[in-house]
Amino acid sequence: MAAAVKAGSVSAVEVTRAALFRIEALNAPLGAFTAVTAERALDEAAAVDAKVQAGDDPGPLAGVPFAVKNLFDVKGLATLAGSRINASHPPARDDAVLIQRLNDAGAILLGALNMGEYAYDFTGENCHHGPSRNPHDPARMSGGSSGGSGTALAAGLAALTLGSDTNGSIRVPASFCGLFGLKPTFGRLSREGTFPFCFSLDHLGPLARSTADLTAAFDAMRPEADGTAVAATLGQGIDGLRIAVAGDYFAKGADPVAFEAVATVAAALGASDTVVIPEAARARAAAYVITTAEGGNLHLDRLRTQAADFDPATRDRLLAGAMVPASWYLQAQRFRRWYHDRVMELFGHVDIILAPATPCVAPPIGQQTMVLDGVEMLVRPNIGIFTQPLSLIGLPVVAVPVRRGSGMPIGVQVVAAPGREDLALRVAAVLEEMGVCAAPVAVGETSWGK
Amino acid sequence: MAAAVKAGSVSAVEVTRAALFRIEALNAPLGAFTAVTAERALDEAAAVDAKVQAGDDPGPLAGVPFAVKNLFDVKGLATLAGSRINASHPPARDDAVLIQRLNDAGAILLGALNMGEYAYDFTGENCHHGPSRNPHDPARMSGGSSGGSGTALAAGLAALTLGSDTNGSIRVPASFCGLFGLKPTFGRLSREGTFPFCFSLDHLGPLARSTADLTAAFDAMRPEADGTAVAATLGQGIDGLRIAVAGDYFAKGADPVAFEAVATVAAALGASDTVVIPEAARARAAAYVITTAEGGNLHLDRLRTQAADFDPATRDRLLAGAMVPASWYLQAQRFRRWYHDRVMELFGHVDIILAPATPCVAPPIGQQTMVLDGVEMLVRPNIGIFTQPLSLIGLPVVAVPVRRGSGMPIGVQVVAAPGREDLALRVAAVLEEMGVCAAPVAVGETSWGK
Repeated sequence: MAAAVKAGSVSAVEVTRAALFRIEALNAPLGAFTAVTAERALDEAAAVDAKVQAGDDPGPLAGVPFAVKNLFDVKGLATLAGSRINASHPPARDDAVLIQRLNDAGAILLGALNMGEYAYDFTGENCHHGPSRNPHDPARMSGGSSGGSGTALAAGLAALTLGSDTNGSIRVPASFCGLFGLKPTFGRLSREGTFPFCFSLDHLGPLARSTADLTAAFDAMRPEADGTAVAATLGQGIDGLRIAVAGDYFAKGADPVAFEAVATVAAALGASDTVVIPEAARARAAAYVITTAEGGNLHLDRLRTQAADFDPATRDRLLAGAMVPASWYLQAQRFRRWYHDRVMELFGHVDIILAPATPCVAPPIGQQTMVLDGVEMLVRPNIGIFTQPLSLIGLPVVAVPVRRGSGMPIGVQVVAAPGREDLALRVAAVLEEMGVCAAPVAVGETSWGK
Repeated sequence: MAAAVKAGSVSAVEVTRAALFRIEALNAPLGAFTAVTAERALDEAAAVDAKVQAGDDPGPLAGVPFAVKNLFDVKGLATLAGSRINASHPPARDDAVLIQRLNDAGAILLGALNMGEYAYDFTGENCHHGPSRNPHDPARMSGGSSGGSGTALAAGLAALTLGSDTNGSIRVPASFCGLFGLKPTFGRLSREGTFPFCFSLDHLGPLARSTADLTAAFDAMRPEADGTAVAATLGQGIDGLRIAVAGDYFAKGADPVAFEAVATVAAALGASDTVVIPEAARARAAAYVITTAEGGNLHLDRLRTQAADFDPATRDRLLAGAMVPASWYLQAQRFRRWYHDRVMELFGHVDIILAPATPCVAPPIGQQTMVLDGVEMLVRPNIGIFTQPLSLIGLPVVAVPVRRGSGMPIGVQVVAAPGREDLALRVAAVLEEMGVCAAPVAVGETSWGK
């Protein structure tokens, strides 16, 4: 798309109009956007076209229409973070840093996307704004909390979206909606200008329909000083990479479809080794304790004064979090250090670890319980069983959508050592090239610029 | 002492015998030592003497007898940390790193010193081992929790002692016993091989009877890679140093004697400016919350299984700490970052800040309440009002003993920016040279090696 815009074979304004047209047609039934910044988008597009006409470089993402989870500050909009409470906040005075970076690269902001309230969610449901629906089956969840980021992308309402991932909120919608999603290394991308959830766990990152798009977005959002462009290394292939499948915890307790997806990817990559990530169940428990304690602290004043305005499901967990003893939190943080050091030892022996992204395909919206491996359990807290133990220690993960003959999409996590997003992205690129992974648009064909 | 040993005018064995003799005579009434390692001390001394005779360098602290708070691991002893519970622990298999470093410098370990239980103390009292008494008036507190470290030094039972300081536990006994004490920058000296109290607040450091001794110990205990010896810069004086007195919080709520001590030091240094450390009262509250939460977490298993074996005063505070909500802890940590950044801004304008060390001279042992500035309050929690806001953010502080015509000793805190122990030590050296500060032996004269 950017190449066509740069070449002048299509204008950024045409691309943007097409995207806005699709949003107009499809957003209401799917619940992807909570705000569409049409006027701004057309202004940005016109500016890109002017650069092209003047012979200036319009940037690597010239004319690419993108949208952001509504916890990103968008100048002039209140930053909802999925809540009703924040609707009364004053409009943001500036864009979040990552929006600025994408704009600087020529991308066009279309608006703000639906999400689970205050990002404390794996379903993409929202009691204030309605659920974001899965374009592959609108009766099913998009996954959360970056639900709108998954919906918009899989429905072809945007070419690129940004989400946040505290315990899996990028990887879950990527898996449920059949998309590529990148949760970068903790701390690698700026969180400035976004509404937080858990200070020691929050990550921001992109979702896209190809590894190349994901990589271009990652490159554009990193600070200039942060190494060379990963896009330039994407074609280096995976010769010599030591790739293993996560065993033990990551090989049980899920629907067979999740393990089939991992086996498909592993077979394509010739990965026959298994590694055991030790104490992954404790890691998940620690992630829960830290999440609820940090979230409860962040929202304490609102819980005291506006409890009735929360989604009850969010409120009750945050209230519980506000009462968690500090001793639990400290124990979880202490475990976290131990666990980090053990997992770093593993990366002395392997470069890439493969694990399921979600334990199942997207459940129907509103479904409360599910049966995994013969055990009935609640849906909401258990969608993230495979994502939480990895984000707890900030590992970079690319969620890749595995091509299946039929049925709902499901993803696999390609996990690398801290700072090695490039390796995980290279593996994703190879899988895409082999045809093992792909992210088609679920609703018709896009006709942007045609 | 080291010079005399190196020159061969006195032997290390003679010095050690004299120290052991004084301990034999004075320890029982003063309660300084909980274990005397006489045999080991004489062996170490003999080894130093052998080096001197062989013409080898015996080290900068050759023959200097020192002792350590009993939370330091001493090979062959159980590390009590002031408790009865730890007495059943197996003997330490190695010395703490700082003991190894002092030994490497030629110093001679005399034994382990009394302390407040698990370092949760400002008085130097201990229900298991009896109080460590103030040599200047044995009916009074030594201050805590490094009580024995103060008592041993002020009574001339050792030439150098090590303590720990979480909220003031080096600076308080230094002030009450009329000694120099250094609480280095957080993280600067190794804590390996010591029994912890609060992971994010614990500091280790020396107490001594002169700035030169304090500096020599600090130099000997730092890792080799940590810059040049501070001793070499001690004589550079204080020309050009911007020295100010802490106002507001640090200028009220204490006995006049505390402010007179600060005024004496400030006048000697020609320091007429005042700086306000913002939100110092909140900083103290944050230090309390973090202390009790981290301490409660550390001791949780023991509180569950051996509650009756704690000092009740320690146990009840740790139990309360184990029930502090994580939200309080997180809020305190969040405040801590804000406060750190504000205080760092102050160090753009000043190099040294002067503040009282304790709000009063040493109270009588067992005293429960005191009146400060017309307000009656508990003794135990309020001795550290001026030390806690500074250690919360890990600033290096030298406590200096101010020479008074009569009465019990009292100290002043000489506070520097992180990593600038050298500046605080230089100020202390100048004050000593001017005769404004001094740390005489309280009980008779020492006759080591005479």
